[in-house]
Amino acid sequence: MNAPAILRAGHVAFRTTDLGRAREFYVDLLGFVETAADGHALYLRGLEETEHHSLMLRKAVTPGASHVSFKVASGDDLHRLHATAEAADLPVRWVEEGEEAGQGRALRVQDPGGLPVEFYVEMERTERLLQRFDLYRGPHVMRIDHFNCQVPDVQSLYDWYTAAWGFRCSEYTETDEPAPRLWAAWLHRKNNVHDIALMTGEGPRLHHAGFWLPETINVIRACDILAGARQHGAIERGPGRHGISNALFLYLRDPDGNRIELFTGDYQTGDPSHPPLRWSIDDPRRQTFWGHAAPRSWFDDASLVESIMAGNLMPTKGSALTDRPEFVT
Amino acid sequence: MNAPAILRAGHVAFRTTDLGRAREFYVDLLGFVETAADGHALYLRGLEETEHHSLMLRKAVTPGASHVSFKVASGDDLHRLHATAEAADLPVRWVEEGEEAGQGRALRVQDPGGLPVEFYVEMERTERLLQRFDLYRGPHVMRIDHFNCQVPDVQSLYDWYTAAWGFRCSEYTETDEPAPRLWAAWLHRKNNVHDIALMTGEGPRLHHAGFWLPETINVIRACDILAGARQHGAIERGPGRHGISNALFLYLRDPDGNRIELFTGDYQTGDPSHPPLRWSIDDPRRQTFWGHAAPRSWFDDASLVESIMAGNLMPTKGSALTDRPEFVT
Amino acid sequence: MNAPAILRAGHVAFRTTDLGRAREFYVDLLGFVETAADGHALYLRGLEETEHHSLMLRKAVTPGASHVSFKVASGDDLHRLHATAEAADLPVRWVEEGEEAGQGRALRVQDPGGLPVEFYVEMERTERLLQRFDLYRGPHVMRIDHFNCQVPDVQSLYDWYTAAWGFRCSEYTETDEPAPRLWAAWLHRKNNVHDIALMTGEGPRLHHAGFWLPETINVIRACDILAGARQHGAIERGPGRHGISNALFLYLRDPDGNRIELFTGDYQTGDPSHPPLRWSIDDPRRQTFWGHAAPRSWFDDASLVESIMAGNLMPTKGSALTDRPEFVT
Amino acid sequence: MNAPAILRAGHVAFRTTDLGRAREFYVDLLGFVETAADGHALYLRGLEETEHHSLMLRKAVTPGASHVSFKVASGDDLHRLHATAEAADLPVRWVEEGEEAGQGRALRVQDPGGLPVEFYVEMERTERLLQRFDLYRGPHVMRIDHFNCQVPDVQSLYDWYTAAWGFRCSEYTETDEPAPRLWAAWLHRKNNVHDIALMTGEGPRLHHAGFWLPETINVIRACDILAGARQHGAIERGPGRHGISNALFLYLRDPDGNRIELFTGDYQTGDPSHPPLRWSIDDPRRQTFWGHAAPRSWFDDASLVESIMAGNLMPTKGSALTDRPEFVT
Repeated sequence: MNAPAILRAGHVAFRTTDLGRAREFYVDLLGFVETAADGHALYLRGLEETEHHSLMLRKAVTPGASHVSFKVASGDDLHRLHATAEAADLPVRWVEEGEEAGQGRALRVQDPGGLPVEFYVEMERTERLLQRFDLYRGPHVMRIDHFNCQVPDVQSLYDWYTAAWGFRCSEYTETDEPAPRLWAAWLHRKNNVHDIALMTGEGPRLHHAGFWLPETINVIRACDILAGARQHGAIERGPGRHGISNALFLYLRDPDGNRIELFTGDYQTGDPSHPPLRWSIDDPRRQTFWGHAAPRSWFDDASLVESIMAGNLMPTKGSALTDRPEFVT
Repeated sequence: MNAPAILRAGHVAFRTTDLGRAREFYVDLLGFVETAADGHALYLRGLEETEHHSLMLRKAVTPGASHVSFKVASGDDLHRLHATAEAADLPVRWVEEGEEAGQGRALRVQDPGGLPVEFYVEMERTERLLQRFDLYRGPHVMRIDHFNCQVPDVQSLYDWYTAAWGFRCSEYTETDEPAPRLWAAWLHRKNNVHDIALMTGEGPRLHHAGFWLPETINVIRACDILAGARQHGAIERGPGRHGISNALFLYLRDPDGNRIELFTGDYQTGDPSHPPLRWSIDDPRRQTFWGHAAPRSWFDDASLVESIMAGNLMPTKGSALTDRPEFVT
Repeated sequence: MNAPAILRAGHVAFRTTDLGRAREFYVDLLGFVETAADGHALYLRGLEETEHHSLMLRKAVTPGASHVSFKVASGDDLHRLHATAEAADLPVRWVEEGEEAGQGRALRVQDPGGLPVEFYVEMERTERLLQRFDLYRGPHVMRIDHFNCQVPDVQSLYDWYTAAWGFRCSEYTETDEPAPRLWAAWLHRKNNVHDIALMTGEGPRLHHAGFWLPETINVIRACDILAGARQHGAIERGPGRHGISNALFLYLRDPDGNRIELFTGDYQTGDPSHPPLRWSIDDPRRQTFWGHAAPRSWFDDASLVESIMAGNLMPTKGSALTDRPEFVT
Repeated sequence: MNAPAILRAGHVAFRTTDLGRAREFYVDLLGFVETAADGHALYLRGLEETEHHSLMLRKAVTPGASHVSFKVASGDDLHRLHATAEAADLPVRWVEEGEEAGQGRALRVQDPGGLPVEFYVEMERTERLLQRFDLYRGPHVMRIDHFNCQVPDVQSLYDWYTAAWGFRCSEYTETDEPAPRLWAAWLHRKNNVHDIALMTGEGPRLHHAGFWLPETINVIRACDILAGARQHGAIERGPGRHGISNALFLYLRDPDGNRIELFTGDYQTGDPSHPPLRWSIDDPRRQTFWGHAAPRSWFDDASLVESIMAGNLMPTKGSALTDRPEFVT
């Protein structure tokens, strides 16, 4: 059986303790487009997106991440994903049409690392606002791009994503000694650097969801807008350039502490003959090409994730490996 | 007697037949900041400006330009300007405090070319929004920069502005034959290319008022915003690069047909030892450095100007010289 | 038999009458990276590309286009393409490894519209210069993106590309009356608007090859660099915004008259459920969103293409349909 | 006697221990234009500048700053400056034409804080490369903008610069308690935020010379270019936004450790009625509007300055005041 036709990262569902405060951050300041809202959730999208939402904010008593979601090509793909999950004894359940607003029948799986992953085919279409330049607000968030997750054992989850789900690796980080060990991997289905990255750390946790901005100045605009509104406390790291992926990045913590990345500047992938790019964990340019240190919180903090069956937040385990201290302030 | 201390271009007053439509254009689409409004006028400013208005839109039965206005250093300067005007038999009158909202006592002169020119010292201060990045809208209009006027005889008005009013020339255009004749001149008091430009043509008319944008992308944003709102008919010329002044320009016609330029990219002047830059009228790069032709309307159309005494629109005279047809589409 | 796994537009081969002049234009001014050169050809690539060339300039006695080339996933795909071409009685031939420098065994087909199309799997890898920012020159050409071709009958060639070769349509232009007729189509394999566009016109001809720039300012930089070097005559059209594809475009004619587009700003595609976007040929925003007219040469001129068997330039036929005159200056 | 007509910051002279290494940094990577060089010095300028040099790198056995230099309007101004210096018993000497390459007769003064300040009228003119866009390299350094100096007692030097030399204050930082004390001041003659800033600290020292870049992306380009060439160690601080002056800044240490700032984004000044903007030293947004901490080296390190008479490096004194620790990493 071939790998299922996973198309791309589709949306992320964050938990928020205060929908109003979340709207101020995401809609009023960052300019996400609001597709719909009710007393339980806020459904947002980027300016070039045509689906109902790429960012869902669910009212909950504690912060965290409900699930990450990949779009797949067909209902057949959902059934193949269901069969694969069952064969591997992974927690899996169907999400009926409308259980998540705007979304057709979908599948949720707790992946072998414990991450709550959803797959969907159909979602209500909305107007692409790409050419409604008169409605652009904030730093011009265009579309969701990827998820970045922390797990204690990257190698085994990498094996699952590549073998069972057909992801390809664009770049990866390895330790050098005593023996090479996979530290982190950038995995993609669409034609750029990643749809999901796996990093070594306490997990399962969602480190961040990445949203794409069109140009360099938009990254700077995000800083300025937040600072102009006296919300500079939301700026956790950046602007800076990752060696890995070449992204010009900015990491923000939303009012609940969930993290998003706003970035621009990666590159086109998609040639099967293109070998993954290896980075040594000791290369100071992999994390920040310009040589800046990241704050400790960026390494330590991440969002707890939900159990797809019970809805509770999953317990985490630490990693035997830790990132090298010289890159931490 | 030394030249009066004229500081810079201060504001322009356009006539508009429809204040609501003017607000949609200038405030809703172009993001000018509204300081004040009443049933007779709209008072707007750019994001870095601290004075009450740099753009005034006065309700009138026909379009046109009421006056252009320069800020001067002191009341003494106003008196010296008054004396100079009287000595030259120019129409001149005092504008009492509050006659123009937010403005202290000012002076209006019909210059020797017939242009209505105001000088003022004091204007009510407002909040500089430079660092309220969260409030930025439109293409980020920062400040007024210059006026561009058409008169039949540039040389004689050039002599007045440089000798009587102390303007310095940064660049100029000359015909080559049979004998060099001054075609146009860029004159400044502040430290950039111009506060006022004089071009040969039917006059006295105000060709445009120029407003400064911070970056290249803002010029493109102005086009996109207007087109996104289906107002692309407002785009008359550009984006393009002037050889003269190096401005990356965009010319817009407001709903009344009055013209503004949005631009970025000129350079610092201010050294008295810097000789003016000469352009031949036959150099195709002076008008559009990239070689594009300007539309005929850009050469033919301009705003009639008011008599400072009677308030009627001044009659115009054509010029014996006309611009070379090869640069007109 | 499934559609062959065509990955993306790979490279274009232009004919040039003067390799030195072509190098000045493409390398010295536009900053293409030179991978290799000999007395017969120049092999260039963009800054993010890792293959030997995306632009080949072949010495020839007349200008024109030798072929456009798509990368495919495997040798099996080449064989399937060969079989499909033979079954349709299309001219087809194998191009042995090394016949085109740096390239493995490839296949050339004269498509049903007469366009010379190459398919290849393997090409020599070179250093990706994406992060050698110190070596960036010119307007930062990143990668080839698409080909745009003119043929008299778009509908029949559209049918071939979608049915036989598996291309998907992102956007298209139709006439409104008397009956809808396909005027132009944007077809893609990779995840953006197009790898090839088909436009109604005299053909078979290559209208242009499109190369991607990262940001708005790079489009302006291209104009400025050419004009700074007094090569503004190379600027044929733009900068402007296409309604179709949302590209911020600039069309250049190289010293041989072959045309390239430098652009940025399209959007991500790839969802099979995304319906193609229809434009009426009477919508003035489809060609230039900002309302500018294109010069006549842009509609009239295009590069003749080679016969893949004999190497001569193919004769062309006109189209019964012509573009609407109101969009031509 | 009126204040002398000081026009603007003109140039800085740094000491360098290795002219070749300095050229690699300033010319090859940062794209400064080389006007002239000999075995003793390198004379550089920005792309819009027309004078012989705005940055002079003098061969010396140790790093440091030889002098900062202001352009004045006339020889009369030099004589008035000479008289003022003598009356105040300041070290002062004439620098004859040609003593500094390209420069006419000039005056050097050790200001009351010990800073070596030069005044000049005439300097050899060179080609303005503003429109030679084809020659632009690096991050597009346009022109020198300002000097930033550290002295133990800002108030007394502020008094001198404003009273004796006619500088105006645009912004300043004050301590809040026990009593307000002037911490730092931004002083200007040309129409933007500063030509010279005075900061409390060990002095006399030159903290940095500031050069202006045209756009946001140029600041990012500077980081990328340095990192691309594996010179990211030169990046000391930034990119970031200053609350004071609104500059989007980047601080670099050259191979000798002398510091330059590359920046864009301040605003127009020049209205005498504009009151200076006050910042509390306890306002976290004054130093970095986005809330980032500056590295300790930025507070601790600065260039020693020369005695204008003997040429030796001046001894320094510390300040009783120190910057607040909470803004230091």
